[in-house]
Amino acid sequence: MASMDLRHLVQDNGSKIVLFVWDGLGGITSGPGGKTELAAARTPNADRLAREGCCGLLEPVYPGVTPGSGPGHLALFGYDPVEYQIGRGALEAAGVGFDLEHGDVAARLNFCTLDSKGCITDRRAGRIPTDESKKIVEKLAKAIKEVDGIRVLWSPVKEHRALLVLRGEGLGDGVEDTDPQRTGVAPLEPKATDDTAESARTADVAGKVLRKAREVLAGEPKANGVLARGFAKRPHWPSIQERFGLKAAVVAGTPMYRGVAKLVGMTELPATNEVERDVASLAEHWNEFDYFFLHYKHTDKAGEDGDFAAKVKAIEEADRALPSVEKLRPDVLIVTADHSTPAALSSHSWHPVPVLLWARTVRRDTVDRFDEVACTAGGLGLRPSTHLMPLALGHAGRLAKFGA
Amino acid sequence: MASMDLRHLVQDNGSKIVLFVWDGLGGITSGPGGKTELAAARTPNADRLAREGCCGLLEPVYPGVTPGSGPGHLALFGYDPVEYQIGRGALEAAGVGFDLEHGDVAARLNFCTLDSKGCITDRRAGRIPTDESKKIVEKLAKAIKEVDGIRVLWSPVKEHRALLVLRGEGLGDGVEDTDPQRTGVAPLEPKATDDTAESARTADVAGKVLRKAREVLAGEPKANGVLARGFAKRPHWPSIQERFGLKAAVVAGTPMYRGVAKLVGMTELPATNEVERDVASLAEHWNEFDYFFLHYKHTDKAGEDGDFAAKVKAIEEADRALPSVEKLRPDVLIVTADHSTPAALSSHSWHPVPVLLWARTVRRDTVDRFDEVACTAGGLGLRPSTHLMPLALGHAGRLAKFGA
Repeated sequence: MASMDLRHLVQDNGSKIVLFVWDGLGGITSGPGGKTELAAARTPNADRLAREGCCGLLEPVYPGVTPGSGPGHLALFGYDPVEYQIGRGALEAAGVGFDLEHGDVAARLNFCTLDSKGCITDRRAGRIPTDESKKIVEKLAKAIKEVDGIRVLWSPVKEHRALLVLRGEGLGDGVEDTDPQRTGVAPLEPKATDDTAESARTADVAGKVLRKAREVLAGEPKANGVLARGFAKRPHWPSIQERFGLKAAVVAGTPMYRGVAKLVGMTELPATNEVERDVASLAEHWNEFDYFFLHYKHTDKAGEDGDFAAKVKAIEEADRALPSVEKLRPDVLIVTADHSTPAALSSHSWHPVPVLLWARTVRRDTVDRFDEVACTAGGLGLRPSTHLMPLALGHAGRLAKFGA
Repeated sequence: MASMDLRHLVQDNGSKIVLFVWDGLGGITSGPGGKTELAAARTPNADRLAREGCCGLLEPVYPGVTPGSGPGHLALFGYDPVEYQIGRGALEAAGVGFDLEHGDVAARLNFCTLDSKGCITDRRAGRIPTDESKKIVEKLAKAIKEVDGIRVLWSPVKEHRALLVLRGEGLGDGVEDTDPQRTGVAPLEPKATDDTAESARTADVAGKVLRKAREVLAGEPKANGVLARGFAKRPHWPSIQERFGLKAAVVAGTPMYRGVAKLVGMTELPATNEVERDVASLAEHWNEFDYFFLHYKHTDKAGEDGDFAAKVKAIEEADRALPSVEKLRPDVLIVTADHSTPAALSSHSWHPVPVLLWARTVRRDTVDRFDEVACTAGGLGLRPSTHLMPLALGHAGRLAKFGA
């Protein structure tokens, strides 16, 4: 089914939708008794909602394809992640909560170790700890503030990573990575990948910035060089308001998820990654928005750590928060995930994610428990995650009839 | 899955397909015991066919999108309703059984009430009854037969609605509505929306027709003005014969469904909306066609009225007609719907519709009862309604092998 433009069908009936994402929720049947984390967890509230609502499975990007957090969430918001791609630099900016302005060009930096001839001996500078990296970034930020009239902004990321943002007039983002992807050679010079004056200007300025950075870092024992990847501007996409007529808000304690939500025009509400406090934050702004994206992080974290028991515990914590969300009386309440993170794999995976959609307008199915295997028999079926937004709008009464 | 052109696979093996549409059949689990209308109904024949055949669920247009009757049927005929859109005027013509000729431009009229300054006080003329409206249309038809060499044809619709058709050479349909969508202002003049001479000609003629109409209606107490919407020509689409190699017939007692079927090239057979008589009409022409679209209206009517019990009764009536259809020994017999019309919502809805496909070539599934929830476990799965036509052709042996 090709994607459908819903703009002319969208209507505002004052209804409210809550998308409660339990990050990385999906698992594989690897636990005791051949259970997934969700099947092993005690989730009386989600189970009740599953009985009263309808369930199914969502495939975030494409069969067999493991999504990153950006694509996984974009799909839930109704943005096909294959069509709506974010350059690595812009994603990195979103990830650290750096709001790119129109025209900014961002790149992801990796600190590296260079030998006396300037050749790379370690592409990740021994994975220096975040604290150390932070100090190096401060040093760079103090030393390099402007080049040729272009402002140069620096932001630490995790471990050996950092963010570089060039701000000024006439910058393009068609610039090659300077990471040669191997050791024993020197970093590459940034080169324009198109023949616009804008990309040439970025390549020129970036070259100067990176050379200066090397001078500043000359005395560092490990991080004495820097590699830049994924030069990119912030994408300018039609907002969730334009596409789906929704005033949308995000409550997410982790900058990355706020960043992605803001790329589609959501308003950021205070968040802490403590689920009950985050629900309270949502409740405080209940009257101001139509659509709330509430993010719960700990499920994914436990999955990434390969900790089955911790993931079960996290799921149970999220479940306990459901009644507080229900108290707000949303018209549509959805519990699902951006992707699977089975503890058995200690990483994101391609497995479809369980979804439960509760609404008064739902056609109930036979699913009486919220878990991956039970959802296989759900009335929503197995479908792309991008179907979730139109289904939410339909159940909320926010789509007019198509044709007479 | 993108749509596939089946023309080079189509073969004629003399097999026969019956598509029996129970209009608006799908419901939600809102009835006694959490049942849908179909689950509550006694349907021994459909249940038997479900046991011998295979079942599933069809999504007519797009997830969450509520289809009008036109789109819902087009999808069942294998025409993606997002790709095959009908202008409102042409749909209105189909709805009253007015066969638009090539070049005709149709518009939907609403009678309205104007004050002494010519400003609209009621956009629907107090929803005057159909009888009254019919007389007004007759008056207009007598008074305005031709303008500038263009024939002007009038046809009553329901209540305050009517159909206007302009017939002649060189007319375009790029013309704006004259309904300002609010009261307190005068009707708009018809304006061309493109810069072709054809659309300008239609705008000019329509302007004259509408001014004359106002003169004719000057003495009317309520319907003393007229608003035109949705100027459109009849779409020219590849027929069901061209696309699927089928000689197709429609048996539908309501003009709207006949009209849509005729847009894809079906031949109209006599019909009454009395189901046993309509099956008899089909039987009389059994040898002349390959594909029969048999329409049953009362299920939708009861759903629209919000009458759960009446919908159950209508379903049972349709079920009782099944043996008469089976007696004809179709190779493929399908029972499904154009869309859901849950009595609980008193309107069309976006919920997928149940489908049962009976054929000797079917792979039977475990479904032993024809209802929405049972169909969730069906072998046909949940899929777009546009998949039904290729499935029907396949089970009828009408598609050659693809590739060697």
